[in-house]
Amino acid sequence: RLLRTAAGVREVARQLGRKPIKLQVKSVMIVTKARDNTLVTLTREVAHWLMKTPRYGSDLGVNVYVDEKLQKSKRFDAEGLIKSEPRFASMLKYWTPDLCWTSPEKFDLVLTLGGDGTVLFTSWLFQRVVPPILSFSLGSLGFMTNFPFDMYKEHLDKVLIEGMRINMRMRFTCTVYRDSKGQMEEAEQFEVLNELVIDRGPSPYVSNLELYGDDELLTVIQADGCIFSTPTGSTAYSLSAGGSLVHPDIPAILLTPICPHTLSFRPMLLTDSMHLRISVPRSSRATAYCAFDGKGRIELKQGDYVILQASQYPFPTVLSSGTEWFESIARTLRWNSRGAQQKAW
Amino acid sequence: RLLRTAAGVREVARQLGRKPIKLQVKSVMIVTKARDNTLVTLTREVAHWLMKTPRYGSDLGVNVYVDEKLQKSKRFDAEGLIKSEPRFASMLKYWTPDLCWTSPEKFDLVLTLGGDGTVLFTSWLFQRVVPPILSFSLGSLGFMTNFPFDMYKEHLDKVLIEGMRINMRMRFTCTVYRDSKGQMEEAEQFEVLNELVIDRGPSPYVSNLELYGDDELLTVIQADGCIFSTPTGSTAYSLSAGGSLVHPDIPAILLTPICPHTLSFRPMLLTDSMHLRISVPRSSRATAYCAFDGKGRIELKQGDYVILQASQYPFPTVLSSGTEWFESIARTLRWNSRGAQQKAW
Amino acid sequence: RLLRTAAGVREVARQLGRKPIKLQVKSVMIVTKARDNTLVTLTREVAHWLMKTPRYGSDLGVNVYVDEKLQKSKRFDAEGLIKSEPRFASMLKYWTPDLCWTSPEKFDLVLTLGGDGTVLFTSWLFQRVVPPILSFSLGSLGFMTNFPFDMYKEHLDKVLIEGMRINMRMRFTCTVYRDSKGQMEEAEQFEVLNELVIDRGPSPYVSNLELYGDDELLTVIQADGCIFSTPTGSTAYSLSAGGSLVHPDIPAILLTPICPHTLSFRPMLLTDSMHLRISVPRSSRATAYCAFDGKGRIELKQGDYVILQASQYPFPTVLSSGTEWFESIARTLRWNSRGAQQKAW
Amino acid sequence: RLLRTAAGVREVARQLGRKPIKLQVKSVMIVTKARDNTLVTLTREVAHWLMKTPRYGSDLGVNVYVDEKLQKSKRFDAEGLIKSEPRFASMLKYWTPDLCWTSPEKFDLVLTLGGDGTVLFTSWLFQRVVPPILSFSLGSLGFMTNFPFDMYKEHLDKVLIEGMRINMRMRFTCTVYRDSKGQMEEAEQFEVLNELVIDRGPSPYVSNLELYGDDELLTVIQADGCIFSTPTGSTAYSLSAGGSLVHPDIPAILLTPICPHTLSFRPMLLTDSMHLRISVPRSSRATAYCAFDGKGRIELKQGDYVILQASQYPFPTVLSSGTEWFESIARTLRWNSRGAQQKAW
Repeated sequence: RLLRTAAGVREVARQLGRKPIKLQVKSVMIVTKARDNTLVTLTREVAHWLMKTPRYGSDLGVNVYVDEKLQKSKRFDAEGLIKSEPRFASMLKYWTPDLCWTSPEKFDLVLTLGGDGTVLFTSWLFQRVVPPILSFSLGSLGFMTNFPFDMYKEHLDKVLIEGMRINMRMRFTCTVYRDSKGQMEEAEQFEVLNELVIDRGPSPYVSNLELYGDDELLTVIQADGCIFSTPTGSTAYSLSAGGSLVHPDIPAILLTPICPHTLSFRPMLLTDSMHLRISVPRSSRATAYCAFDGKGRIELKQGDYVILQASQYPFPTVLSSGTEWFESIARTLRWNSRGAQQKAW
Repeated sequence: RLLRTAAGVREVARQLGRKPIKLQVKSVMIVTKARDNTLVTLTREVAHWLMKTPRYGSDLGVNVYVDEKLQKSKRFDAEGLIKSEPRFASMLKYWTPDLCWTSPEKFDLVLTLGGDGTVLFTSWLFQRVVPPILSFSLGSLGFMTNFPFDMYKEHLDKVLIEGMRINMRMRFTCTVYRDSKGQMEEAEQFEVLNELVIDRGPSPYVSNLELYGDDELLTVIQADGCIFSTPTGSTAYSLSAGGSLVHPDIPAILLTPICPHTLSFRPMLLTDSMHLRISVPRSSRATAYCAFDGKGRIELKQGDYVILQASQYPFPTVLSSGTEWFESIARTLRWNSRGAQQKAW
Repeated sequence: RLLRTAAGVREVARQLGRKPIKLQVKSVMIVTKARDNTLVTLTREVAHWLMKTPRYGSDLGVNVYVDEKLQKSKRFDAEGLIKSEPRFASMLKYWTPDLCWTSPEKFDLVLTLGGDGTVLFTSWLFQRVVPPILSFSLGSLGFMTNFPFDMYKEHLDKVLIEGMRINMRMRFTCTVYRDSKGQMEEAEQFEVLNELVIDRGPSPYVSNLELYGDDELLTVIQADGCIFSTPTGSTAYSLSAGGSLVHPDIPAILLTPICPHTLSFRPMLLTDSMHLRISVPRSSRATAYCAFDGKGRIELKQGDYVILQASQYPFPTVLSSGTEWFESIARTLRWNSRGAQQKAW
Repeated sequence: RLLRTAAGVREVARQLGRKPIKLQVKSVMIVTKARDNTLVTLTREVAHWLMKTPRYGSDLGVNVYVDEKLQKSKRFDAEGLIKSEPRFASMLKYWTPDLCWTSPEKFDLVLTLGGDGTVLFTSWLFQRVVPPILSFSLGSLGFMTNFPFDMYKEHLDKVLIEGMRINMRMRFTCTVYRDSKGQMEEAEQFEVLNELVIDRGPSPYVSNLELYGDDELLTVIQADGCIFSTPTGSTAYSLSAGGSLVHPDIPAILLTPICPHTLSFRPMLLTDSMHLRISVPRSSRATAYCAFDGKGRIELKQGDYVILQASQYPFPTVLSSGTEWFESIARTLRWNSRGAQQKAW
């Protein structure tokens, strides 16, 4: 029950980040782009290494779930793997979006191979409880892909043997309500890890959105749109629109307007205990469009609204180091790196 | 002990804001500018009303502490008050900065008459435990002066009888350390409610500050200066320098550069559990200057540093309403109020 | 020939703004929203007053052109006007967009009744030479509607008798070129008074635009879009996106990115003598969309580009005062009007 | 007379930038930091090469003026130079600040060795007419030091033989007037190439400045200070304070507030034909401080003011290429260089 409240989630989150926790990892899920040939080859390599490397006193390793799309892939060659060691037949399994939805507890650890987009996709797969996520980067490290792939064996050995420090990243639960002849009906619901964006879409008219916090009207937003970002998303779209950088441990909802029509509409941070409702007024001459982590564009008609609140299902990522976040922004944004000339003489 | 940690302070803070607490208010302290004739007259009026209005079954009211500077003031006329009711002699008392430092528990409630500056002064008076603060505004309401003076009787009756909702505002403890022949010695220490500013002062050279978080070097700040602001201070200097508006319930340290020398140095929010150290490098060609809530300008020489951390002594203010903060920014900053023209035709 | 160069236009512009010029105004065109009943009634009133008020020694006034859509309007009641004075039959005429295009010299002065949108519409009507424009506002004054309607007689008398000071506002000539099997073909051309906007439209992908200045690649724009604004447009969309306010006498092209993907992409001002080409690379995965003064949304496919240059057809507006621009921004944007609190105490 | 007006200066400026002009360069002045040993050695090398390389049909080169401080420098070793070629005795001359002030026409070309600071110093030396300036950089190129030193022979040969393209950079003439018992008296006057800054200096109070344009009050500035920048200065302090990048050919005065107290006080560009007066009101509780190109800190007392106008003495710099400015900002500011991650997936 404690876990169901924002405060509880936050307190647990803080404790998890402090010291490594040891989990009995028996099944590892691997997420990657099944269409990318290079990634499929690497997925095979990691899966093979995980299954064959002895763990926990056994002479074999851990179970591996790969994307069901790879089941018949020649490049992945599941048959070849099993031929090399018949016992792999019971260890190599396949995940589907449906399985992630119904049985997330089957996965003790999720590896992602790719970029930050693959991490967002993983968040989308797990709409409820999320297993710990460890993200490898193939090229340069990203904001969320903090483990270099070329050292995957060392990193995985360390995590499986010594344990891992976890960063419980806040997500938002966004629920769309539609006006059906005056009755509000619940429609789509999404967990977002980066941000909810509501904008004017292709309409030439500026969007006019009413923002309610805990059922009180806070303001009317006249802008091209508005971004509701998690701290994790503060390095993404919100930053482009002028928002501040926010450490992922801070429990806050970032409200960042896109091209606002008033000069005084500064970005704002609200408490994560607030329930927000963003509504298209019935009198508005234009509709609005929602995007959830950049995906799932949905039209909001006059009278419709979205409810946004801190999720009870955070997104646990494995930390590469205690200053991981600072390193990622210095590296990726060149935050405060030197460029300008001295001015004094 | 729970109170001594940032997390504990925060959790207590959250619970206090939710429902009114009833305190047995037996002694009220009044803070105002003792040199302002109008304010002295109003102080007398409030003190008189507080002492004479029957409370808690007695036929008299509560004790009142006023500024010691008023003891001999003709305008305040303490003698006249006592003449009107001899029992006031034991009820009317005088506070000094020293008393606030040694015995803050003597005051059950502090009233401020004036503007936000008087609230900052009250924070400066209470460098350790702070009694609840209720701030009256004489003119237009400010960010922290949310009670209109002309209704002081109604507001005080309500607070004394029904209880009050408290906003535990974070403060920072800032400690200056000086390099004394290679040994670091603790020097000044201040509690700040709005912000610590470190800037180049009158020097034409840009300040070069090293910023450490939990003893790791986070960045080198090349700028005219840097603001370390509480959420309460997010509507003050930090806002002028480009910072976001941050709700006072959010546990965060705002880092807002002043005229930074790199285009990528965006304002940033750090967790309140981080210990910050801001240091003037020994190799720096210029010194730097600190100001604490706009006061107490101190020079930092090469090798000196300041330690900043969330204080264990927050600043409890009485809430006028649950949306007090939104109202104050809408009113004072004209946040997002309409100004621009429609652009479509 | 001098008029055909940016420098020439600018020099003539400067001289026109300095002292009133007297024009022999024989025909006045009135532009308004023909669907707005109130405006139609006011148009009738102004037309009547202009035709009946004796000018230039005659016992009648000047010719008036109204929107052809009013010819059969009962509310405008052209018949009634002519019945009141049969000689009006030859004085009351009708304009069409076609007439504005082919014979702009027929109009010695154009009045607009409405808001800034009506002024933009007038710019759109006159794609080549533009007569002087005097803009009345019915409600609060706008950036370009600087004459209050309730004093129209005084203002028109003054202008017709004493002359007028003219502000030659820069426009851009924007020409779309389409890739037709490798051959570039000229397509749409528009004069814009405020801005050209090129953005990603409904695409989720960020636009990737190549910007060439005088045929040299200046930069690749990765952003939601980019605004190319005149100084006149600096108070419109460009301002929302973070651009500076630019006095309309400054010969410059404002380049203001919308949500750029790099922190160092600051708004920039280019010289008006530069020819810009904005191109969607053939390798781009998304197309882009153009809007001209907020109108005429056009898709740019891979390989297409737009050429933008300072127009040889500026937009002459009648000045209400020498500090008209400063007054309009103070009034409309509340530029630098007081809101924040004092911080010192 | 044409040269004395802003418009005239601008028109001449534009023509100079278009095509190379050939000047008969008979005397070259070299400016550098006389205290920097490396620079003194290089100055000797360049001086020697200039004097010995045959020009204009003669078997010797051009006259060279070096800093008078080098006359007795052992490192510069003037004696040694003359010993190597006795005719150098009449070719090697020494400049003083006084000579720059009284006889700028003695120098046909000025070379600077160093950084942008050395270019600002050269601007300070020539308070009236300025010879063409060619600036070498020893390390990485700066905003104004666009010629790499290691190719100085090639660059100088090209310039002396084929001619040079000139960028006439605007300067401001700033004149301080002091209130002497109610009479305004002219005091200091400076030409600035980058900016005039007026700020609160060490005062804790915000500066309150009245800004007049052509004798009309435009606004009252409540801020830490205000920057009045040339387009050349748009890459310096103005940029740190949030100003736009402005191409040096645009005739404009940038007004960029430093930490303004109102959210609507956006940076603004004024026409270069405007005469500005910035005044400390007699009623102000604080004084203000001026700096001219970062130098010459002067206190403005209550009642004092500064007059700023476009100078009739622009600062001609030799262009390295037609896109020099774009290259300098891309190089030095990393303008719009890639850092952020893709957001779509």
